Amino acid sequence: MSKGLPSRENDFSGWYNELVKRADLAENSSVRGCMVIKPYGFSIWEKMQSKLDSMFKDSGHQNAYFPLFIPKSYLSKEADHVEGFAKECAVVTHYRLKSDDKGNGVVVDPDAKLEEELIVRPTSETVIWNTYKNWIQSYRDLPILVNQWANVVRWEMRTRLFLRTSEFLWQEGHTAHETKSEAEEETIKILNIYSSFLEETMGIPVLKGTKSESEKFAGAEQTYCVEALMQDSKALQAGTSHFLGQNFAKAFDVQFATSGGKKEYVWGTSWGVSTRLVGALIMTHSDDKGLVLPPNLAPIQVVLIPIFNSDEEYKVVINKLDLIGKNLKSSNISYKIDDRKNHKPGWKFSEYELKGIPIRLVVGPKDIDNNTVEVVRRDNLTKEVIDEETLIDKVKNLLDEIQKNLFNKAKIFRENNSHIIENYDDFKKIFKHKNGFVYAHWDGSIETENLIKKETKATIRCIPLNYGKDKGKCIVTGKPSNGLVVFGKAY
Amino acid sequence: MSKGLPSRENDFSGWYNELVKRADLAENSSVRGCMVIKPYGFSIWEKMQSKLDSMFKDSGHQNAYFPLFIPKSYLSKEADHVEGFAKECAVVTHYRLKSDDKGNGVVVDPDAKLEEELIVRPTSETVIWNTYKNWIQSYRDLPILVNQWANVVRWEMRTRLFLRTSEFLWQEGHTAHETKSEAEEETIKILNIYSSFLEETMGIPVLKGTKSESEKFAGAEQTYCVEALMQDSKALQAGTSHFLGQNFAKAFDVQFATSGGKKEYVWGTSWGVSTRLVGALIMTHSDDKGLVLPPNLAPIQVVLIPIFNSDEEYKVVINKLDLIGKNLKSSNISYKIDDRKNHKPGWKFSEYELKGIPIRLVVGPKDIDNNTVEVVRRDNLTKEVIDEETLIDKVKNLLDEIQKNLFNKAKIFRENNSHIIENYDDFKKIFKHKNGFVYAHWDGSIETENLIKKETKATIRCIPLNYGKDKGKCIVTGKPSNGLVVFGKAY
Repeated sequence: MSKGLPSRENDFSGWYNELVKRADLAENSSVRGCMVIKPYGFSIWEKMQSKLDSMFKDSGHQNAYFPLFIPKSYLSKEADHVEGFAKECAVVTHYRLKSDDKGNGVVVDPDAKLEEELIVRPTSETVIWNTYKNWIQSYRDLPILVNQWANVVRWEMRTRLFLRTSEFLWQEGHTAHETKSEAEEETIKILNIYSSFLEETMGIPVLKGTKSESEKFAGAEQTYCVEALMQDSKALQAGTSHFLGQNFAKAFDVQFATSGGKKEYVWGTSWGVSTRLVGALIMTHSDDKGLVLPPNLAPIQVVLIPIFNSDEEYKVVINKLDLIGKNLKSSNISYKIDDRKNHKPGWKFSEYELKGIPIRLVVGPKDIDNNTVEVVRRDNLTKEVIDEETLIDKVKNLLDEIQKNLFNKAKIFRENNSHIIENYDDFKKIFKHKNGFVYAHWDGSIETENLIKKETKATIRCIPLNYGKDKGKCIVTGKPSNGLVVFGKAY
Repeated sequence: MSKGLPSRENDFSGWYNELVKRADLAENSSVRGCMVIKPYGFSIWEKMQSKLDSMFKDSGHQNAYFPLFIPKSYLSKEADHVEGFAKECAVVTHYRLKSDDKGNGVVVDPDAKLEEELIVRPTSETVIWNTYKNWIQSYRDLPILVNQWANVVRWEMRTRLFLRTSEFLWQEGHTAHETKSEAEEETIKILNIYSSFLEETMGIPVLKGTKSESEKFAGAEQTYCVEALMQDSKALQAGTSHFLGQNFAKAFDVQFATSGGKKEYVWGTSWGVSTRLVGALIMTHSDDKGLVLPPNLAPIQVVLIPIFNSDEEYKVVINKLDLIGKNLKSSNISYKIDDRKNHKPGWKFSEYELKGIPIRLVVGPKDIDNNTVEVVRRDNLTKEVIDEETLIDKVKNLLDEIQKNLFNKAKIFRENNSHIIENYDDFKKIFKHKNGFVYAHWDGSIETENLIKKETKATIRCIPLNYGKDKGKCIVTGKPSNGLVVFGKAY
C-alpha cells in the first residue's frame, strides 16, 4: 500500500477518483469517455443487478432485448424527445472498412455509406414503441411489462467514472397500459421499488418526488425521481420513473381496441437506474481509508486473516480459518481467507479496508490457545475479541447492524445537511458555502428556476410528493408558492 | 391457433422461421439485421447465461466490462485479426446531431466529426489487450481470468434470427497467462465447459476438435470448437475457444517480469458462445408441433390446465391445481396454471406444445373423483393418467427422463447421420443428397480444402482431438493424410 487517499474534507473529488482507481473498481479506457469496469467493481454492479432484477420479476416484469441502433429519423418522431436526445450521440454512418491503398492500416469504405444514419441508443423509447406497435392490437395484449439490461451511449464532454460516462450500463423498463391510471400506478410502483432498493439494499436514504418541467425526461408527462445526498452535500439523482402519457403511442401510432371496440392510444411508462448507482454507493458510505460496502452488496462479506510466526503456527491457524469459513458458508455468508505468506497482516488490513469488506476476522496463535477470534467491523473500525463459539451469531448480527448503521449514518448526515430557507440571501449563502438539500418556496415559474440556477448553480432536485399542501411565498419573487421544493447542486 | 407450422421435412428453413416467430422467441427489428429478443426467447437465454455464468465462476473466472467502441487503428495492430474483423462493421464517424436548417428533423453535425473513427466491437481482443497492458507488470499479476457478457456487431448481409444477426449477445472470455501450457490448459478447460453445458444442460451432443487454418479465429494460433448437427443434417458451430499464443501480447506490447526477473510476452486465450445457441436449441429438439425445451432450460417446466363445464367445477379444479402448484414449487419445479376461461383446453394444449413446456398436467372433474392427474410429456407426446399421490415423484422423474431422452435422441440422430467416406464420389453424393457429419481423409492442404468447398459447399467442421493417430490417404488427392477430419455444411 502506498500513501493514503486524499481526504474527503480537503479534496472530495480527488478522494473519489483515487478510491475508484485504488479499490480496483473502474478506470478510464483509451476510448474517450468510456470506462472499463474492473472485476471488483463489476461484482458490486452484479449484486445490484441481481437484487433489482428479482424485484422487477416479483412485480410481474419480464426481460427482453431490443436493438443497439436507432434509425436517425425515429428520434424526431416525438417532439420533446428529439430536443433532449438527438444531440450528443454516437452516429454510425458506414458499415465497412477496407485496406488503405497507401498501406496505412484500414480506412472507412466510402462505398459503404448507410442510406440512413444509425444512432447508438441513448435510451430506447423510440425503437421500443416502434416495436410495440406490432405487439399491441387489442386490450388483451396489455399490459406489456418489459425491462432490458443494456448499454447506452450519450456523448459526454466531461466524464467521471460511474457518475457520467459516454457509455454506461443500465436497465430500462418500458411498459404499455390500457388506462392512464394504470400507467400512473406503474410509475409509482417502480419509484417505490427504486426507493426500497436504495434504502434497504444500498443503505442510501432517498427523497421521492417529481421533477420540474425543465428537469423532466424529454418526452414524459411527469418524471418521478429518487434523490440522494452525497458526503460532499451535493445531490445525486439515483433513479427516474417516467409517466409518458400517450406521447410515444401517438408518435409511433400505437393504438389498441378497447373491450368496447373503440380505438385508443396506449399509455406508457419508462424507468431506469444505471451504473451511476455504484458512484452513489461510494460517495455515500466510504471514508478516508477506502470503500465501505453495505453487507447486502459486498461481494465478500467477511475476510479472514491469519497471524503466524512459523510454518507450524501457519498450519494451525489456517486450519482454524478453514473451519470458520465452512461455518460461514453454511450460514450463507460469503468470505475469503487471505492465506498469502508474502504480505504482512498490517498490509492486508489496509488492503481490505480499502476494498470495503464489512467484517475482518483475525486469528493468531494466542486465539488458538484461548478459543477466540478478533472481529473488526469496517464501518466504524471497532475491534472486539470474542469467544469462537459465539462467532457465527456474532457475524450474522454484525452484518445486520452494519447494514442498518450505514443507512442511519447517511440519514443523519442528510438531516444535518437539509435546511428550510426563507429568504434568497440565506439561500445564496448556503449554496456558496455548504450546499445540502435546501427546502424553499418557489413560484412555480421556469424563469425563477433559471435565475436561481444562474446565480447559485442550484437546481430543483425534486418537488416532494405532498407538494400543494403548504402554501407560501417564493423566496425570489415573493409570488405565491404551492409548497416547498428541494434545491441542491447536482452531480 | 391458426394453421400449423410448415413441416421440417418439406421446408426446414420455413419451419424454423415460423417457429421462432409463433413461439414468441424473437423477431426482426426495423433496423436491418438486428433482432428483438422477445420475453419468452430472452428467458431461455437468461437460463443459459445463468448456468454458464456459474460454470465460469466455479472455475475461477470473474466478470468485467470493456468499452463498446474500438478505435479503428487498434484493429490493424494484429495482422491476421485485421483481415478477419476489419471488414463488415459498424463505423461511428460523428458524435452529434443537429436540427436540420430546412426543418427536416435532425441531421449529422459536420462539425462533430471524430478525429479517429470508432468501430462498434465485433469482438474485444484488441481493446482488452490494450487494457491488460496496464494491468500486467509481473508474474504476480497473472493469470487474469476475465469474462464479459456483451453485445457485439458484425455487419451481415444475410441474416437469420439467432443464427446470424448483425447485433448479437454473447459472452467473451479473455485470459492472460504466464506460460504457454497454462494458456493451452485454459483453452481446453473452456472447451470442456462448453461441451458439458451443451450436452448436459442443452441436451445437444457435440463433437470436440480444432479448426483448420482457414476456419480458425483471426489472430489465434489454434481454435478449438464444439460442433453440433441440426435436424436438417447441417452443422452448427456452437462455441469456440482460442489459444492466442503471444499474438495479442506482441501486438499490444504486453510483457511481464518473470519470477526470475526476465521480461516475457504474456500468453492469451479467448472464448465465446452467443445467442446463436438459442437457434441450435430450437433446431436440435423441436418438432412440427413447435418448440421442445429440455427441462434444464425451460422457463416453465410444467403447465397445469383445468377442464371444467361449470363455475363450480372450475372452482374445485383450480383449487386442486393450486395445491399441486404449491407442491411443485416446494420441489423447485417451475410451473404455470393457465386458468383462463376464454380459451378451450384444446387451444391451450396446442399453445403449450408450441411453447415447448416439457410437461402438461390436466385435471378435470373425473380426476377429482378418482384422485388422478393426466400427465403428458412434450418430447414424445405420450399420455398417462396417474395417481395424484405419486405425482410429484412422477414429475421429477419425468423431467430427468425428458432431459436424457432429448440428448439420446439427438445423439442417435447424429450417429445415423455420420458417415465415414472413402472416396470423393461418395463424398460428393452425400453432400448433394443428405449432408450430415462426414469423416474423411484429407491431405492437410488448404488447396484441397478450398476445392472441396467449391465443389460441394462442405467445409471442415473440426479436426478431431485424436487427429494424427490414424493415417490414410486423402480422398481427393490420394496424398498421405494424418487422420480423418469431419466435414459438414455449416450454418
